[in-house]
Amino acid sequence: MPTQPSKTLETFDNPAPAMDYTIRIEIPEFTCLCPKTGQPDFATIYIDYVPDERCLELKALKLYIWSFREEGAFHEKVTNDMLADFIAACQPRFMRVTGRFNVRGGIYTSITAEHRKEGWQPPQPVTLP
Amino acid sequence: MPTQPSKTLETFDNPAPAMDYTIRIEIPEFTCLCPKTGQPDFATIYIDYVPDERCLELKALKLYIWSFREEGAFHEKVTNDMLADFIAACQPRFMRVTGRFNVRGGIYTSITAEHRKEGWQPPQPVTLP
Amino acid sequence: MPTQPSKTLETFDNPAPAMDYTIRIEIPEFTCLCPKTGQPDFATIYIDYVPDERCLELKALKLYIWSFREEGAFHEKVTNDMLADFIAACQPRFMRVTGRFNVRGGIYTSITAEHRKEGWQPPQPVTLP
Amino acid sequence: MPTQPSKTLETFDNPAPAMDYTIRIEIPEFTCLCPKTGQPDFATIYIDYVPDERCLELKALKLYIWSFREEGAFHEKVTNDMLADFIAACQPRFMRVTGRFNVRGGIYTSITAEHRKEGWQPPQPVTLP
Amino acid sequence: MPTQPSKTLETFDNPAPAMDYTIRIEIPEFTCLCPKTGQPDFATIYIDYVPDERCLELKALKLYIWSFREEGAFHEKVTNDMLADFIAACQPRFMRVTGRFNVRGGIYTSITAEHRKEGWQPPQPVTLP
Amino acid sequence: MPTQPSKTLETFDNPAPAMDYTIRIEIPEFTCLCPKTGQPDFATIYIDYVPDERCLELKALKLYIWSFREEGAFHEKVTNDMLADFIAACQPRFMRVTGRFNVRGGIYTSITAEHRKEGWQPPQPVTLP
Amino acid sequence: MPTQPSKTLETFDNPAPAMDYTIRIEIPEFTCLCPKTGQPDFATIYIDYVPDERCLELKALKLYIWSFREEGAFHEKVTNDMLADFIAACQPRFMRVTGRFNVRGGIYTSITAEHRKEGWQPPQPVTLP
Amino acid sequence: MPTQPSKTLETFDNPAPAMDYTIRIEIPEFTCLCPKTGQPDFATIYIDYVPDERCLELKALKLYIWSFREEGAFHEKVTNDMLADFIAACQPRFMRVTGRFNVRGGIYTSITAEHRKEGWQPPQPVTLP
Amino acid sequence: MPTQPSKTLETFDNPAPAMDYTIRIEIPEFTCLCPKTGQPDFATIYIDYVPDERCLELKALKLYIWSFREEGAFHEKVTNDMLADFIAACQPRFMRVTGRFNVRGGIYTSITAEHRKEGWQPPQPVTLP
Amino acid sequence: MPTQPSKTLETFDNPAPAMDYTIRIEIPEFTCLCPKTGQPDFATIYIDYVPDERCLELKALKLYIWSFREEGAFHEKVTNDMLADFIAACQPRFMRVTGRFNVRGGIYTSITAEHRKEGWQPPQPVTLP
Ligand SMILES: [Ca+2]
Ligand SMILES: [Ca+2]
Ligand SMILES: [Ca+2]
Ligand SMILES: [Ca+2]
Ligand SMILES: [Ca+2]
Ligand SMILES: [Ca+2]
Ligand SMILES: [Ca+2]
Ligand SMILES: [Ca+2]
Ligand SMILES: [Ca+2]
Ligand SMILES: [Ca+2]
Ligand SMILES: [Ca+2]
Ligand SMILES: [Ca+2]
Ligand SMILES: [Ca+2]
Ligand SMILES: [Ca+2]
Ligand SMILES: [Ca+2]
Ligand SMILES: [Ca+2]
Repeated sequence: MPTQPSKTLETFDNPAPAMDYTIRIEIPEFTCLCPKTGQPDFATIYIDYVPDERCLELKALKLYIWSFREEGAFHEKVTNDMLADFIAACQPRFMRVTGRFNVRGGIYTSITAEHRKEGWQPPQPVTLP
Repeated sequence: MPTQPSKTLETFDNPAPAMDYTIRIEIPEFTCLCPKTGQPDFATIYIDYVPDERCLELKALKLYIWSFREEGAFHEKVTNDMLADFIAACQPRFMRVTGRFNVRGGIYTSITAEHRKEGWQPPQPVTLP
Repeated sequence: MPTQPSKTLETFDNPAPAMDYTIRIEIPEFTCLCPKTGQPDFATIYIDYVPDERCLELKALKLYIWSFREEGAFHEKVTNDMLADFIAACQPRFMRVTGRFNVRGGIYTSITAEHRKEGWQPPQPVTLP
Repeated sequence: MPTQPSKTLETFDNPAPAMDYTIRIEIPEFTCLCPKTGQPDFATIYIDYVPDERCLELKALKLYIWSFREEGAFHEKVTNDMLADFIAACQPRFMRVTGRFNVRGGIYTSITAEHRKEGWQPPQPVTLP
Repeated sequence: MPTQPSKTLETFDNPAPAMDYTIRIEIPEFTCLCPKTGQPDFATIYIDYVPDERCLELKALKLYIWSFREEGAFHEKVTNDMLADFIAACQPRFMRVTGRFNVRGGIYTSITAEHRKEGWQPPQPVTLP
Repeated sequence: MPTQPSKTLETFDNPAPAMDYTIRIEIPEFTCLCPKTGQPDFATIYIDYVPDERCLELKALKLYIWSFREEGAFHEKVTNDMLADFIAACQPRFMRVTGRFNVRGGIYTSITAEHRKEGWQPPQPVTLP
Repeated sequence: MPTQPSKTLETFDNPAPAMDYTIRIEIPEFTCLCPKTGQPDFATIYIDYVPDERCLELKALKLYIWSFREEGAFHEKVTNDMLADFIAACQPRFMRVTGRFNVRGGIYTSITAEHRKEGWQPPQPVTLP
Repeated sequence: MPTQPSKTLETFDNPAPAMDYTIRIEIPEFTCLCPKTGQPDFATIYIDYVPDERCLELKALKLYIWSFREEGAFHEKVTNDMLADFIAACQPRFMRVTGRFNVRGGIYTSITAEHRKEGWQPPQPVTLP
Repeated sequence: MPTQPSKTLETFDNPAPAMDYTIRIEIPEFTCLCPKTGQPDFATIYIDYVPDERCLELKALKLYIWSFREEGAFHEKVTNDMLADFIAACQPRFMRVTGRFNVRGGIYTSITAEHRKEGWQPPQPVTLP
Repeated sequence: MPTQPSKTLETFDNPAPAMDYTIRIEIPEFTCLCPKTGQPDFATIYIDYVPDERCLELKALKLYIWSFREEGAFHEKVTNDMLADFIAACQPRFMRVTGRFNVRGGIYTSITAEHRKEGWQPPQPVTLP
């Protein structure tokens, strides 16, 4: 039986909760509809996060991304909405979501939004020479 | 009012029918559904052709490409079907259609099909040094 | 009826005004005239900003960019002028505008100008490892 | 005094008329108007030719390219028209003109047209290992 | 239940057997063992073919590629063997298999082998300008 | 006699223990099995570290990497586990481990984890203009 | 009448003196003579600066660059000398000059020197996510 | 004592005169003067040839290339002239000379000229799959 | 015990002698001495061949390449000599050897030589669309 | 008379000792011997430094690099040793040396070491937008 698009995100136990470590996810196959013209839009979605107790499960994430296929969605709104859904699902210590949209009429746009858990301090960057 | 996906291709008069010249079209935003799993597939479509009396109109071509969004389509079949539709629409002297599909499970595939009008001879290639 | 070039920028409500998030825009199709020689100049324009209450609308932005097509414009001045117009239109928390101009006489030039709203503090950068 | 756009192509004596040699020209700064919407179009023009008695003069060629700035021009027609004008100006042994147009609505197009002087044979290609 | 590596290739009906068209497959995730040292080797496998009555099924192909994971295999032999297996499975009109192996001790190697069905003529290449 | 995969890491004396210097290692040939499906996964592993008294020996490191070939391993866990093993082996002043995994179902993931020895201060970065 | 190489730099009024903005210039066509061997040297010159009351005029800058064509010039000295000349001409708030020289005997070299006006503070960098 | 620019090309005995083999030379540091404006021009020169009894000596070739530094030279003429000089010096079985000139006014040009010794047949190209 | 450089090439039985297939080898780590100045030269060596009864063994090939480390060698001669040694060792149906040498004095050179066994016909190239 | 490899570094007077400026050197042609196997190793060496009273002379540096050609040298040790020799020769205000070694057995390594003169403060980085 074919799988279905779904807004339900799933998570699993962070296997190393004692660490502040980074998970990076890149999804080049996001597509939604332009809410003005009804025509397809395409974007690459980037998710960088520091998990707390739960991690995003990738199979459910794929169905979640698929769920935008028939929705009209403004660039600015859909990026902020995805961030809100991911936060609700896994309560990360830090998360950054970027939507890089395909060129339209000679103009390229991308949107980036961040969330930081209250009280969480980012790791002091160690820049090795 | 939003435009709609459509299988109807449109054409316009070739402005230089005395010439054998080449039109190249690249569409990185093709998406359809996998007929087995129902999940989205993505591809880039390439069309290279020598027009005869009619040229493919790009706005209608875009809606045509959009029309596959909800269809289940095998890679090999959809590429050959698009070629057949383009031939029916504009009867080109020569046409080559390629579908380069996104990686799935670590495997990349692409399909290329060609059509040549009966009696048409390709131009002798001139290779300048 | 054909659209027209226009200096009027349009905006829409920021869908996530509670957030400090980034909008990035790249326009490779800027052209104006050299005020000394009258000949065409070409550039790519980059706009990075943090919206406040309003976002730049892209269709009007395209007509705005088009409005320079017949104007003579020094590189340094046109970049600073665009920044001023964008600020007047959408009052962003932060904005950076860069004009990267095409080579002339073996020399490449680019101009970058920034604006920061009084009292606004940039987000503390989170550099994930 | 500023120079002006102009349809007049100029030529100069081929300094090596005894040879079949190749001149290649690339012009990334072509812009014209879309005849349907009136909005600006952008393209890169490529000219490859074997001169006969006359060569294309580059300064006049630049003003010629500039002359399309205010004209509405279909992709297929403008490429074939430029080829015709270049042939009329310098009667080359062979010429190939390509217009590679910027993306519009997620679709890329390019047009290539060729001319060969009657009786002229292209050089037998020498492919060195 | 986990799937298993398998030497069994599967095929499906060519959906366009009247055409001579090309299927290209790229598999960057081939790994086997060096028959001399027992250590892992890595390669990218390229398959280009013109199907006759049957096409290679990609899911089974993936398990077939996996089946080399525990085998010792000389570069030259494994490439020719894969070609033989693919021919046995789908009897293509034409097939070319390339194994591009990872660098070892500062030396890069790749192997390419071809098969052509008796009596089959390759399509006359159409080189568009 | 062929060598064998092994979890035993080996080390050698840091030849310059008075210095805080950086060793960078890139291993594009990591493969393990997906613990859910049993199918092969592929990744590139990056190790950046500041050695203390001991350095990681590369030949043993290669056999260690090989040892994951038959193990089921979640992305997040295997990256953190490798970091723990490397720390146990050579007690570095600082270490960062990244696993960049190959695309699966259109999704790319990478995991980065760091360790810093208690009391160790990273070098003040010197950014030369 | 042909123009001439010249050490005279020209400047024009900064059109936006209220702003701290950046002008970047890249000149890939610098050539001078090696003071030891007399043979030609080639470099790309990069100039990044924040103008104060005057900007460098590009036509005169081109003749200035040309003026090194017949001079013997050590890499380290010519880069520092150019910086001094540019400062004398336009008194910038900040300037950085880099000379990236072509490979000689398998060795690549580049030189970078900076100047900062007394009392001038660089803009606090705003790093957007 | 510094070396001097010189029009004298030197040659040495072909060490493998029984073979038709290819020598390729690339010189990115060609500069001459524009005969109209007197300003410097820059180009990369490519020489591909099949030697007969003599090969071009590279040190003398470098001084020869240097000799154009103070000369006014049209693109088309200088490329054909270099070919003539190289032929006079080493009488190759085949030679191709290309001058790829730097962009001027947004236009790129390159010139390619060939020479084939009477009676010499190019090697039949062997295209390995 | 350390291995030693050696002029002795080794070969092994072609595992698929019934086929005309291609073996490609790339060795970026060739170094010899300039016979005029005694200084080190560096090159990348490319070997493409169709084996007959024997294939070149890579470990011995590596020691062979190493054997040039202390030899003075003209570019043209060393490339032709390597071809001769490889032919003597494995009697291939076809072989092409290229030496691409590092830049010296702003000049890049490469040498390509080929050998074809008497009576051997290259495979008719199959160019798939 | 051929030049000779030599451990003697030479220096010359810094022509701009009043400035803190940067000299960058890249040497892609480093080769030494593996102290374990005796086989050749290859690396690219990067040197970035702020000179004090003396600069490194490039011709002697080249002979110095050459001097490692016959020496066995561990990656970590040779990089730290070169830094020590360069410091002894020119006493720079700051120096960073990186050795990026060629791949061995599927593993890439690089080593970076730094030196800062006592009391020297690095320039406050000026990051222009
Ligand atoms: Ca995209
Ligand atoms: Ca794609
Ligand atoms: Ca492909
Ligand atoms: Ca541009
Ligand atoms: Ca720039
Ligand atoms: Ca373009
Ligand atoms: Ca194209
Ligand atoms: Ca590979
Ligand atoms: Ca990988
Ligand atoms: Ca990533
Ligand atoms: Ca350069
Ligand atoms: Ca150039
Ligand atoms: Ca060109
Ligand atoms: Ca090289
Ligand atoms: Ca070359
Ligand atoms: Ca290297």
